[in-house]
Amino acid sequence: MTEISVNVDVLEENDLVAKTIREKLAHRKILALNLLSSPGSGKTSILEKTLERLKGRFKCAIIEGDVQTSLDSERLEKKGFPVILINTGLGGGGCHLEAEQVASAVEKLLEDHLGPDSQLDLILIENVGNLVCPAEFEIGEDCKITVLSITEGEDKPLKYPVAFRLSNVVLLNKLDLLPHLDFNMVLLKSNLANVHPKVKVINMSAKTGEGFDEWIDWLCEMIEKKKSGA
Amino acid sequence: MTEISVNVDVLEENDLVAKTIREKLAHRKILALNLLSSPGSGKTSILEKTLERLKGRFKCAIIEGDVQTSLDSERLEKKGFPVILINTGLGGGGCHLEAEQVASAVEKLLEDHLGPDSQLDLILIENVGNLVCPAEFEIGEDCKITVLSITEGEDKPLKYPVAFRLSNVVLLNKLDLLPHLDFNMVLLKSNLANVHPKVKVINMSAKTGEGFDEWIDWLCEMIEKKKSGA
Repeated sequence: MTEISVNVDVLEENDLVAKTIREKLAHRKILALNLLSSPGSGKTSILEKTLERLKGRFKCAIIEGDVQTSLDSERLEKKGFPVILINTGLGGGGCHLEAEQVASAVEKLLEDHLGPDSQLDLILIENVGNLVCPAEFEIGEDCKITVLSITEGEDKPLKYPVAFRLSNVVLLNKLDLLPHLDFNMVLLKSNLANVHPKVKVINMSAKTGEGFDEWIDWLCEMIEKKKSGA
Repeated sequence: MTEISVNVDVLEENDLVAKTIREKLAHRKILALNLLSSPGSGKTSILEKTLERLKGRFKCAIIEGDVQTSLDSERLEKKGFPVILINTGLGGGGCHLEAEQVASAVEKLLEDHLGPDSQLDLILIENVGNLVCPAEFEIGEDCKITVLSITEGEDKPLKYPVAFRLSNVVLLNKLDLLPHLDFNMVLLKSNLANVHPKVKVINMSAKTGEGFDEWIDWLCEMIEKKKSGA
């Protein structure tokens, strides 16, 4: 069987949808973050702790992107915020979230939170675990956040520069393992500076909680800024 | 600008090219392995140690797939075997090797090793660091090998089942970090068995050398089997 498919500039079409999402969220003053990383860097663990810290302060929702399974979305649902799961599936294109998929999830979240008391403040979008394609597809976010586990090595910003270049913050996770690794922090920071000189780097450990004060402070400031319409 | 591109079943075309590579390598009795993993799982470190162990016993070559940079190929070149670098680049499709790219590299390796004394025994292909798309594109290999670092968590076989299901061997790397992680080995093995009950799992550490005897034994047996035309 031979299938013929015609793609009219996939990235360009995607960016148009992303722009619409961004405008809708701006109108409702909701901050949206797009979390990127390799599989197993700790995005979900960081989100769990982040949601615990934001509970009672802000109204949050999560959009969870995964090739398949609901393992991560089930973990996040336990934190008491609404979670929408997007299974990207297999067969080409499943390795990242696209704006069209996120648009439907955002639409549902906005409909479910219409009243002034249920107004959302923050949508956290966990992308598929992959450092390549998720960086190339805008999904209507205000900021990209890249999580890098120090177990992955110092060279990753050079090998996957787009994710690091487009991110506002890099969360350097699993810092608790530093004493057990041959990890050169000076080299990592220099590699990061090479691809994105002004990026904010937060050393953290989702296991010990180290670095979460700084991360939550940054996040709250961003939410307040968005709410104030700045 | 609007670009129109017509794709005639990308995967089907890819598989035809992969079949041609496989036939050429079978004719020359050269074993080809396709190494998959997340970024930073330790594929290159494992390859470095593997090449050291095979030196003087077999004639090897490496095809190195990377989105960009020559960092890994430079590391591997130091081991004294020929290395061909394929930079897959950005802009869609850069997240995995395709058969067409590997075909040119294999062609060059075969031309460079024509005489009976320079005949190759093994081609090791390091795919782009990504657990999704590389699993879907055949590149003419005899076997896929998936490397999983235990720092990535027990759930990865369930979340990225295609790579694990299609692999003959799973190399469970960074075992030296086990005492410092909350890692449940029984759960990992059960998750692996769920997606691929008969897969061979080798516990290893590219840092300490643990597990390399078993890995090299398996590899040598496969090379000899291929050379004998079995």
